[in-house]
Order: sequence, then C-alpha cells, then structure tokens
Amino acid sequence: MSQEATVASNSAPYRDLPPAASVLFEAKARKGMTFAQIAEEMGKDEIWVAAAFYGQAKFTTEDLAKLTSVLGIASSSALEAGLGDHWWPSRGLGPVPPTDPVIYRLYEGVLVYGHAIKAVLHEKFGDGIMSMIDCKITLERKADPKGDRALLTFDGKFLPYAKW
Amino acid sequence: MSQEATVASNSAPYRDLPPAASVLFEAKARKGMTFAQIAEEMGKDEIWVAAAFYGQAKFTTEDLAKLTSVLGIASSSALEAGLGDHWWPSRGLGPVPPTDPVIYRLYEGVLVYGHAIKAVLHEKFGDGIMSMIDCKITLERKADPKGDRALLTFDGKFLPYAKW
Amino acid sequence: MSQEATVASNSAPYRDLPPAASVLFEAKARKGMTFAQIAEEMGKDEIWVAAAFYGQAKFTTEDLAKLTSVLGIASSSALEAGLGDHWWPSRGLGPVPPTDPVIYRLYEGVLVYGHAIKAVLHEKFGDGIMSMIDCKITLERKADPKGDRALLTFDGKFLPYAKW
Amino acid sequence: MSQEATVASNSAPYRDLPPAASVLFEAKARKGMTFAQIAEEMGKDEIWVAAAFYGQAKFTTEDLAKLTSVLGIASSSALEAGLGDHWWPSRGLGPVPPTDPVIYRLYEGVLVYGHAIKAVLHEKFGDGIMSMIDCKITLERKADPKGDRALLTFDGKFLPYAKW
Amino acid sequence: MSQEATVASNSAPYRDLPPAASVLFEAKARKGMTFAQIAEEMGKDEIWVAAAFYGQAKFTTEDLAKLTSVLGIASSSALEAGLGDHWWPSRGLGPVPPTDPVIYRLYEGVLVYGHAIKAVLHEKFGDGIMSMIDCKITLERKADPKGDRALLTFDGKFLPYAKW
Amino acid sequence: MSQEATVASNSAPYRDLPPAASVLFEAKARKGMTFAQIAEEMGKDEIWVAAAFYGQAKFTTEDLAKLTSVLGIASSSALEAGLGDHWWPSRGLGPVPPTDPVIYRLYEGVLVYGHAIKAVLHEKFGDGIMSMIDCKITLERKADPKGDRALLTFDGKFLPYAKW
Amino acid sequence: MSQEATVASNSAPYRDLPPAASVLFEAKARKGMTFAQIAEEMGKDEIWVAAAFYGQAKFTTEDLAKLTSVLGIASSSALEAGLGDHWWPSRGLGPVPPTDPVIYRLYEGVLVYGHAIKAVLHEKFGDGIMSMIDCKITLERKADPKGDRALLTFDGKFLPYAKW
Amino acid sequence: MSQEATVASNSAPYRDLPPAASVLFEAKARKGMTFAQIAEEMGKDEIWVAAAFYGQAKFTTEDLAKLTSVLGIASSSALEAGLGDHWWPSRGLGPVPPTDPVIYRLYEGVLVYGHAIKAVLHEKFGDGIMSMIDCKITLERKADPKGDRALLTFDGKFLPYAKW
Amino acid sequence: MSQEATVASNSAPYRDLPPAASVLFEAKARKGMTFAQIAEEMGKDEIWVAAAFYGQAKFTTEDLAKLTSVLGIASSSALEAGLGDHWWPSRGLGPVPPTDPVIYRLYEGVLVYGHAIKAVLHEKFGDGIMSMIDCKITLERKADPKGDRALLTFDGKFLPYAKW
Amino acid sequence: MSQEATVASNSAPYRDLPPAASVLFEAKARKGMTFAQIAEEMGKDEIWVAAAFYGQAKFTTEDLAKLTSVLGIASSSALEAGLGDHWWPSRGLGPVPPTDPVIYRLYEGVLVYGHAIKAVLHEKFGDGIMSMIDCKITLERKADPKGDRALLTFDGKFLPYAKW
Repeated sequence: MSQEATVASNSAPYRDLPPAASVLFEAKARKGMTFAQIAEEMGKDEIWVAAAFYGQAKFTTEDLAKLTSVLGIASSSALEAGLGDHWWPSRGLGPVPPTDPVIYRLYEGVLVYGHAIKAVLHEKFGDGIMSMIDCKITLERKADPKGDRALLTFDGKFLPYAKW
Repeated sequence: MSQEATVASNSAPYRDLPPAASVLFEAKARKGMTFAQIAEEMGKDEIWVAAAFYGQAKFTTEDLAKLTSVLGIASSSALEAGLGDHWWPSRGLGPVPPTDPVIYRLYEGVLVYGHAIKAVLHEKFGDGIMSMIDCKITLERKADPKGDRALLTFDGKFLPYAKW
Repeated sequence: MSQEATVASNSAPYRDLPPAASVLFEAKARKGMTFAQIAEEMGKDEIWVAAAFYGQAKFTTEDLAKLTSVLGIASSSALEAGLGDHWWPSRGLGPVPPTDPVIYRLYEGVLVYGHAIKAVLHEKFGDGIMSMIDCKITLERKADPKGDRALLTFDGKFLPYAKW
Repeated sequence: MSQEATVASNSAPYRDLPPAASVLFEAKARKGMTFAQIAEEMGKDEIWVAAAFYGQAKFTTEDLAKLTSVLGIASSSALEAGLGDHWWPSRGLGPVPPTDPVIYRLYEGVLVYGHAIKAVLHEKFGDGIMSMIDCKITLERKADPKGDRALLTFDGKFLPYAKW
Repeated sequence: MSQEATVASNSAPYRDLPPAASVLFEAKARKGMTFAQIAEEMGKDEIWVAAAFYGQAKFTTEDLAKLTSVLGIASSSALEAGLGDHWWPSRGLGPVPPTDPVIYRLYEGVLVYGHAIKAVLHEKFGDGIMSMIDCKITLERKADPKGDRALLTFDGKFLPYAKW
Repeated sequence: MSQEATVASNSAPYRDLPPAASVLFEAKARKGMTFAQIAEEMGKDEIWVAAAFYGQAKFTTEDLAKLTSVLGIASSSALEAGLGDHWWPSRGLGPVPPTDPVIYRLYEGVLVYGHAIKAVLHEKFGDGIMSMIDCKITLERKADPKGDRALLTFDGKFLPYAKW
Repeated sequence: MSQEATVASNSAPYRDLPPAASVLFEAKARKGMTFAQIAEEMGKDEIWVAAAFYGQAKFTTEDLAKLTSVLGIASSSALEAGLGDHWWPSRGLGPVPPTDPVIYRLYEGVLVYGHAIKAVLHEKFGDGIMSMIDCKITLERKADPKGDRALLTFDGKFLPYAKW
Repeated sequence: MSQEATVASNSAPYRDLPPAASVLFEAKARKGMTFAQIAEEMGKDEIWVAAAFYGQAKFTTEDLAKLTSVLGIASSSALEAGLGDHWWPSRGLGPVPPTDPVIYRLYEGVLVYGHAIKAVLHEKFGDGIMSMIDCKITLERKADPKGDRALLTFDGKFLPYAKW
Repeated sequence: MSQEATVASNSAPYRDLPPAASVLFEAKARKGMTFAQIAEEMGKDEIWVAAAFYGQAKFTTEDLAKLTSVLGIASSSALEAGLGDHWWPSRGLGPVPPTDPVIYRLYEGVLVYGHAIKAVLHEKFGDGIMSMIDCKITLERKADPKGDRALLTFDGKFLPYAKW
Repeated sequence: MSQEATVASNSAPYRDLPPAASVLFEAKARKGMTFAQIAEEMGKDEIWVAAAFYGQAKFTTEDLAKLTSVLGIASSSALEAGLGDHWWPSRGLGPVPPTDPVIYRLYEGVLVYGHAIKAVLHEKFGDGIMSMIDCKITLERKADPKGDRALLTFDGKFLPYAKW
C-alpha cells in the first residue's frame, strides 16, 4: 500500500473501515475526483457512492469493476477480495453521539425535531415508520443571496405496522 | 386540568414537556384537528407547529393568541404564563439513543449515511456545516404504486468555518 | 381508579405506560383472563395483544370497543381518551440493557447469535434486513419429555437495501 | 497469512475474533461456500456453524478436522492451536447497542416485544425463563408474492425458577 | 398505608418495588422478625424469602396466606392484588454498577474472579454455563477467631450448550 | 514467542493481560494440564491459580519458579520480568456489563439476589460488608441425577463499618 | 405557590432546582425584569445572578433581602429557608452531554477547541489550569452589520500545579 | 518518521490524530517554536493554529506550504497527502467527559454556567444560539498581582432560529 | 412535615435520602448547629455524623435518642421508624461522575493520582488494598498566609489479598 | 527497547502512557528501586514522583537529568524528546469507574463520603472548593497491633467561589 494510503487510513473514521476501502480513498485522491464525478460515471447518486466508500453500502461485482476502471486502480482483485461477494457491510460508523459538528447537526435534528416528524408522519400515514432501508438520500446546493443552502432529502417508503 | 389531559400527560414524551403543553395537546385532541390543519390556520408549516407543541420551538404571543382561538381554549393566560415571554425552549427530547422505531430510523440515517453526507457536503461547499438552526423541515406524502413514500426534507443554510 | 390498579401501576414497567394501560391491566386481572383468551375474543394473536397492553402497538377504535366488552370495563371513554385516535405508541420499554432474565435472554440471543443470523440472512437474501415492522411474532409451548420448550418465531418481511 | 485474510480480518467484527477464525473465513471465501453448504457437510445447522465461525460456539476436534477437509485447509494444526481443546468461546460480539441495521432490528424486537413475550411466557409456563443455552435457532426463507419473508425461530427449553 | 411504611418506602431500593412490598416490609419491621425467622415459619431459606420481599422471586398464593398470618397482616387481599396470580417479578434491582459497598463487593467478585471461575467451570464441565435460574443461594455465618466469616454459596445446575 | 501463543493472545480477554501471561497459557496448553492439576502441584486452589493466570492475583517469586518447572518453561526470566517483584495486578477484566453468558450469570446473581444477600448479611452480622479481599472462592462439581451441579462458594471475612 | 410557578416548575431544568428557586423565577416573570435589570439593582453581573437563580451560585443573606425587595416578594422567609445559611449549591445542571443547542454549542467548543486551548495555556503559563472557581464570566452583545455577535468571556485565575 | 515523532505520537491525544499531524508536532518541537510564534508567521491566531495542529481545523494549501517553510519541513508532500485537498477534519477530540483537568474545567463551565449563559443570551438576542462555527476564540494572559489570569474569549455570531 | 423541610427535601441530593433524613436536616437548620457542634455533643467526628445524616452511615438507637435531644426533635419515633433497627444504609449518593465541583475534585484526585497511590501502597504494604470500611476520615482547616488549606485524611486499615 | 520493557509496556495502564514512560519503569525495575528511594534522591515525595512516572505530573529538565543519573539510564535524550519541554501531561488515567480494587476504594470514598466532606468543608470554609491543583498528597504506613494502617492525606488549598 502506498504512503498516501497509510497516511490517510489510520485516522478516524478510516481506521474502522474495511482495509480495501483505503484503496478506494487513495485512488480517488490521486485522481482528484469528487463523489459526484465518480457517481456520474457509475450512473449512481453521489451520496450512495460515498456511503459505499465508507463501507455503509455494498458495491456489486460490476460496480467494483467499473470503479477499478474509473479510478485507475491497477487490478480489481484487492477490491474483490475485500469488498466482493463474501463481504457484507457492517453498518453504523463513528462515535455515538457523534462529535463532528456536521454529523452532530443531523443528530440534533433527530433530538429536536424527531417527535414532531413522528407526529406528522402518523397523522399522514397512520401507525408505521419511514423506512431507512428503502430510502434514497440526496444533497443539493441551492443558491441563496443570504448564503447558499443545502437541501438534504430523505425519500423513504412508508411501512405500516403489522397486526397479527 | 381535565381527565383527558391527565391521561395523556403522564406518559413519555409528554411528562418531559412544560405543563402548558398539556393544554395544547388536550385542546387539539378535543378539536380533532391535525397539525396540518392547525398550521394552515397559523400560516406555518405543520412540522414547525408540531415541534412547538413538543416544546422544541417558541410560539410568539401572537401565535399563542391565535392558538387559543383556533383550538377553542377558554383563556390564553395559562399558555402565556407557561409558554410566553419568560419561557424559552429546552431543546432535545426523549431517550438517547431513541428507542421508538420512527425516531430511531432517523438516528440510523445519521449512523449509516452521516459520513457520506458530510463528505459530499464538504465537496460541494468546503469546510463548514449545514445549519440546524436556520433550517426548515418538511414532510410530504408521495403516492407510489409500490407503497406511498415519505419525503422528508431539511433545507439548511451552509455555514463556513471561521478562520481567525 | 381502584386500589388494585394503584398497587399495580407504580412499579416497573407499568409506571412507564400510558395511564390508560392501567385500566386494561386492572380489568384483565379482575376478569382473570389470559392474553390468549383475550386475543381469541379479538381474533388476534396473544403476543400482539400483550404488546398493545404494554403500549407497544396500537388498538383501533373497534379494538378498544371490543376490549371494553370482553373485559367488562364500564365505559370505553377512558380508553378512547388515552389510547384512541390522537395517541400513538412510544415504542421501546424497560431498561437497556434489560435486567429481567426473561428479557435479557432474548438480548443475549442478539449478542451471541446476531452476527450468525446476519451472515445467513445475507447468504439467503442478499443485502438487506428482516423487517421488525412487518413482522409477526408467536410463542408456542411444545411438549418435550426432557422439559417443555418455548417456540418463539419471528416471521418478518425481507427488505432489500435501496440503491440510487 | 494470505493477503485476502489480512484484508478481511482488520475490520469489524472480524478484529474481535480469535485469529484462527480468519483462517476459516478466508478458506470459506476461497471455496465460495455458503454456511448452508458447510453445515450440510458437517451435519449441522447453518446458524450454529456461522455462530462458531464468529467465535460464539465451540467446534469439537472432529468438527475442526471435518472443516479442514471441507474447506481445503492445508493443515488443521492452526485451527487446533487456536480453537481446540484449550480454547473456550468468549461470547457476545459487536457494539452495544448494535449499530448494524440487521442486528439492531433483532434488538428492537427485544425493546418493543420483550415485555409481551415475557407476559405470554409466564402465562403459558409460570415463573421461569426460556433458555438461550439449550436453544436452537433456525432461519428459513419463505416465499411470499408480496415479498419473501424470513422465518427466524428460537426453540428454547423452559427453565422454571428454583425455590429453596 | 401507615406512616412507617411511607417513611420507608420512598427511598432506594424500596421505591422501585411493587407497592405491595411496602406492606411486607412494614409488617416485618412491626413484628421485629428477621428473614431467618420468617423463612423458618415458611419452610424456606432466608435468602429466597428476602429475594421475594424485594420483588425478585414469586410467592405462591399459599406463601402469601402464610405470610399474612406470620406477619400479622390484617388481610391478604392487598398482597393478593399486588403480588398474586397476575403479577410476575420484574427482576434486576438497583443501580448498575452497584454503588452500595455490600453489593459492589459481589460485583467486584465478578470483575476479578469471573474469568477464573469460567475457565475452571469449562475444565470441569465443558462448554456451558452454571444456571442462575435453577440455583439455590445460601449465606452462613462461620465463627472464626480472627473475625467471623460469611459463607455465600451458589448451588446451580450446569447447563451444556446446545448444538444443532 | 511461538505461533500458538500468537494465535491465542490477540483475542479477548487475552489481549488485556500482561504479555507474560501468554507464556503461561501457551505452556499450559502445550502441557495439556488443567488448572486443577497445576494448582495441586503448587499446593493452591485452582480458582486462585486461574485468577493469577488472568492477571488477577499475584504469584510470588517461588510460585513463578514452581510454575516454570511444572509447565516446562525454558527459563523463568520472562515470567520474572513480566510478573515478578515490580509488577502488581491491575484487577478487573473484561467488558462491563459482561457479555459472556457464564460471567453474565454471576452478574445476574448480583442484580437479582444482591439486595437479599445484603439484607440477610446485615441481619446476621450488622452494618458492614463481606470482604472480597480476604475471600476464598472454590468451585466444585456435585453429581446429581437430574444434571450435575456447580457449587460456587465465597468464603469472605465480615468487616464491620468503622465509626469515629 | 401560585399557578404560574406550578406551570413553570415541573419542566426541565426547573424540576432539578431547589424549590425556592421557583419563587424567584415566578417573581421575575411577574415583574417582567431581565437578569440584567436585576443584576444592576444588586450591583452584580447578570451571568452571576442568573447562575444563582439556577442554583449554581450562592446568594448571601443580604442578596436575598435585596432580591425580596427588588422582585416584590412578600416575605424573604421562604427564600431564607430554602436558599439561606444552611443551604449550599449542588452545582452541575442538566443532561450530559447537553441536548439543548445553546448549551451544546459551548460543549462543542470544549470538544473541538479544548486541546488547542490547553496547548496555548501551557505555552503561556506552564503546567497548570485556568480556574473555574475564581472565574468571572460575562456575555456582551456586539453589533455587527453581518449579524450581531455574542462575546462570551471567561476571566479565570491561572493555578500552577503543586509539586511536593 | 524520526524517533522523536514515534515517542510522541503513540500517546493521547496524538494517537487519534491524522498521521500527518505527527510531522507538524515533531517539526514544531525540533524548531522549539510556540503556537504564538507559528501563528504570527502565518498571520493567524495561535488558538486557531493549535486547533488545526490537533486536526480540528483545516489548513489551506497555502497554509501547508507556509508551514513547510516556517517549520523547516523537508517537503510539503506528506502534509499535502495527509491534510490537503481530499482531507476534511473529523472534529471532536479526546474522552467524554474529559479527564484532563484543564479541559474538564471548560466542561465544568458548561455544567455550572450553561443555563445562566443560555438565559442571558435569550434575553439579549431572543430565541437562537451563539454559533460555534462562525466563532473566534482567543486566550490572553492578564497580569494580576494576586496571580495572573487567563482571558478566554468566544466571539460568536448569534443565529436566530428559523420559523417556517 | 413543616414547610422548611419541604423546601429543602425536594432538591438533590436530599430527594434520594430516606425521608427521615429530612427531619434531621430540618432540625439542624432550625437549631442553627454545625456538624462539628452536633458531633461534639455525640462524641463523634463531624464527617461521620454528616455521612450518617446523608444516609451513608448507621446511627444506633442511642445515637438517635441523643440526636432527638440535641436537635430538639419532639419525638424520636419518626427517626426510629425510618432509620432504626430495621433500616440499613444504601450507600453511594449522587450522580456518577459527580458534577458538583467540590465532589468532582475528590474524584479527579482518583483519576489523576489513583495509580500513583496504588503503586506506593503496594511498595509499602505488598498486594492488598486500603480499606474504605475500616477507615476514618477527618477534615481540618489549616491556617496559611497564602490562603487557608483543607487537610483531608483517610486513615484506613491495610488488607492483604487472600491466597488459597 | 529491551525485552523487559516490551513485556511490561503493553498491559494496562502502561499502554496509555507516553512511550518514554516505559524507559522510566524499565530502569526502575532494573535498579530495583522503590518510588520512595527515587523520591529521596530527587528531594521530592514518592506520590508525586509516582504520579509523574504515570504521566500525571511534569518533570522539569533538571528532574529528567537527575532521573537519568539515579536510574542509570544511558542518555537523557529519549526522556527529553518524550517528556521534555514540548510535552504536557494528559491527566486522567484508567477506566471509569475504576475496576482495580485499590483505586475503586478511593472512588467508593467519593461515592459514600463525598457529600459529608462537602458539607463539612462548607461549614468550615464557606462556598468554595478544596483545590486538587494546589494539593499535596502523602501516604504513610502506621503500625497498628490490629493490622497496620495506611494514612492517606490530601493537603489542598481552599478556593472561595468568585462573585462578580
């Protein structure tokens, strides 16, 4: 593994990732590509691609082959060995509660607005939840003269509670 | 306080709310109004109104007067005494980590997708955060033949980190 | 509220339930009915009925009317006021980690066999989860000469992870 | 140890396993066998075999010899040294509360349905517990036109509380 | 309830007990009986009787009738209502980790000697556990010129791990 | 250090032990001796010897010399360097609360029976504690037709609270 | 106690304050005075006065008499009984980590800038701490065309570590 | 990496920093420069520079080039690889709650004075927070005959809560 | 109970004490006596007397009678009922870790100097502990021109570890 | 680094110390000196010297030179590099709450006697704390026919709370 990867891979949150993730982050840095650029090449959304880099989603074999080519990785075998068919994501990353302010703000959204969202969800759908499994997340930049804004959207299927 | 309020106000999360909140929940139940209906009368969004019912946002004196009328509360003085000028929200409600599945799913979104959202935010905006203070949250129901979906949107101002 | 209810309702886990739950537990005790008997009258499974008694599932208005009759409760209005249309379950009950040995054993099952179940689930279904929302749980007594056994079954829908 | 094992063995939950477990996971990946296939060769259930791979159950010397042959491992001595007679499982694996959604859902089942299961268990058996030691766990895939379902069964002996 | 009970029942660990337990503790204090004396009248061991007073074991209806008579309680109906057929122990009492030095010392025994006990148990019995359900606990005072000693004995059934 | 030791010493609870403990566990495995056999050679009880292997008690220089001979260790210098005069046990081993079912059951004994043991101790001895420092712990196997039982005994000095 | 006080005193953080604090908050609300106005009358800083209202600092008997007069409280005896000579602050208020965003931001300052502050403190003063006991805290509003700013200052004595 | 860096980089809080941070700390020690001296060369404040050394703020490419020259680092490529364009701070460092007395005192300030600061902030600005993102922190030494004092100032923008 | 007691007894740490403790604190406040004065009348040390007021030590019947007289309490029966023969201290009081700065400083002493004290204790006494049961604690005020000092002394019996 | 140091430095609490601390502990063991002997050579108290070995206090350059000579260390450069001018203690060592019985007993002293010490401190000094920064700690062995005793003394400056 090159020196750059070593430098990057020992610090949080990288040290909790599958080692093969370092290959991806290193190649992305060397290529100087953003997640948006990689995602466009793969026909995917950037948030999903970033989640998979962080070991929170699963690339298919085709995804790994595509990545090998897009990122100029010499061989896909290390990716296949580490992230391929026999590997499954261990989801949930970082300290709890989160200490990084970007991630903490999302968590604060749960603390402050969670009960309001729950109440309105129940009024609109009844007893059930909004799925975080069948859920698509996007982040857009919206220009605003008073300061640009981030538009973060969760588009999740409603799942009614079973009764039996 | 009427029996209905007593019945409702001792269980979580109501017991952690300012006592005046019981008056609001009781009146809302008696009127049979949804947060959407109340919000429309007030010219506000339903999530914000629900957050304020749960003690997570602050009604103005005008809001309280409007609520008194919309919900058919006999007098606004109890609301004023409990939620008025000298009261400020103590934000953050419920157990950590949350145990209710609706709220836990939002929290799981932070655990699973938090680092991906952070990475893409940095790529789109640079070093900074998405504000949860200057942030507007909405929840829409989107019809879908495979099962309706909930569209939860956070529209927050980007705040760059100060350097000094 | 009668003395029996008072005696029962102050101790764990009853003190964390909506107050109207006391009416149910008290009536059940007075009638001397099991959850199986109540469930049969309601055309439901006993685990689901018990979960609803503990505030972990939601009775419909029809369920509440039926319960009023089955349990010989004088009037359904207290149930309606406390558990009716404007009430939604706050799910998740008891200390974490659980200290009661019956409940701890289930938790121990998660600690000891969780990764094995996850691995086999992935091998049989791919990347996704077994739903605890669209999930039906039953508990049967199975006679066994070496000591009767409990057969606890979770029948949950598999939900594949979205990719976007 | 080969590169594949190194890639796999540093990430959660593998880094908390006995090092000899890496030999097993590596050989399983190289052979491309599922737990179901390995279990069939051993005359065992797949959940139990997976649990033992994760260091949560104990293989006998015969099991280890069988595995050596089934998985095409060069020699059984490393397995014997690491998982043999002088080794005993240290059970309980992964973060508490679990962050991976598959395992969290099982944990949520304990939080939401634990008291209901406890109440019905007591009504059916009296004061005691369902053993997680003399317990057999299986996971089946059940076809369903609305989406296949997972059938997870715990078959545990009831143990009455001693009085003395 | 008399003043004595009120005085005693608000402080730890009494406030976490079923209210009917106060009746027992109050009567025991008024009679001036030790657990050993009560246990002898009931044909039981004092540790088991004390555990049941603390809501950690379950008296039968016969036990409750016997207690009513032994402790001079006016009527068994409050005991029956609170601790009778429809009540089941919620086991696990007090803060974790324990702060009281008597109870902490037992916990310290687990921290310091737990792995040694586990290792010797495995060497003597194989893979399994010592049951805390089918377990009888006794405490004896042993005279010793250098200071009397307490002999605390756990007599628990060994349960081998199931394989399947 | 030989390969066997490496295999064993990286997994819990071994990784939290003084490195010299690996030498002991490795030699014990190579000799195929139980703690009972080692203890007999040393004129000690097996629980105490096991506790010292796990770094929870302190061998004297004579103990280390005896162990070197009994376990066929080439030289006592590594033991002396790591566990000798300048080393003192750092007591308390493993996660809290314990996740291994063998050790958890002991902990459950504290949760469930701790207050009963405390109450009876006070009735038999007055205000004070049972020492876990001047305490001798033994574990016996007792044959029983319904399943053999483990007899775990704590023989600890009573220490009355000072008043001053 | 009047209704206003009841409304205010049951919700966080008021319920953790000495009951006499309610008298102060109620009178302040009735008078419609800010902490700045009260502090000016007392010849103190507003942050210190607010801290004392929240039970985090100690009023003298003279302070209590002055407050009685400034806030138009009928008699100082309740304040004297609850906050007088025999009462001492139990400092530290609210959940840890804090959930309210205003207080969390201060805590985030510790998480993010704590090590930097420590490093610079050591470079400027040597080995020691900045006292939080002999520390004066002020908060000013500073006009700024891009949005007014809060100037929060801690003026604390440096305390060098003793060597002995 | 030189021996000095190795010596310093394994202990808290250095082991949680990006590896490239070691290069900075090592060079700073070799040069014998304080943060104040480095900051002056960079036209920045010492607290901000120290925060960036601890991985809590982000140097620009120009900052890294300047540091390379000021600290006499042979080449900026390791800094660029580890802290450059593709790296973003993971903010929040050290144990929670902090154990070091310097940092704990700041945390104690939050525990003791947090509610007072919040109350005065609301009175001066209304409902909102003091930003920790657009916040400048400085630390001055103030001479005092009774012992020099540290003047720690947070200059943060007030952010009003959105209503929508 | 008088109003003064009510005012004092609802706030921390009083609300966790046995209710009879309120009688003691109220009488002490009414008499205006310090712990030193009460202790002198009882022939005890003030720290021990204060500990017993806080429910952390046990008064004898003679102590309670003496207190009744010294503090001018009307009758000893409430004290006897609440703190007499059938009551035993539940030791350990207040939040963990402590938030009050006075108590936190003692805790900080354990965090910072604990290992040093342990090392020196072992060098002076061998393997064992300093008893906190047979331990006498005193606090003296020592005049010092640079600021008076508190001399806090723990005089505890050394207890060697048993070997068996 | 020699083998002895390696053996000792990987186990708790040594692994959390600055690496240069290993050099000190190794040399102390090789010399066979106690902290008392080292302290006497340095003109310091043994507790302070031990604290500095554990990274909880700061040696001056003169102290390090003296130690190099007293302990027969070949060169002071490693000590200077690791513990010299550019290093500051990160105080607070070991698990919380402590598990080692020696250290736990001190912590138990805080839990049991903390409120009593606080109350007496306030009665003797007023509102303030006993400093743990300007505090000198000593441990003496006191001969006693019933068993020798340890005399642990904290001699700390009283610091009155600022008012402003």
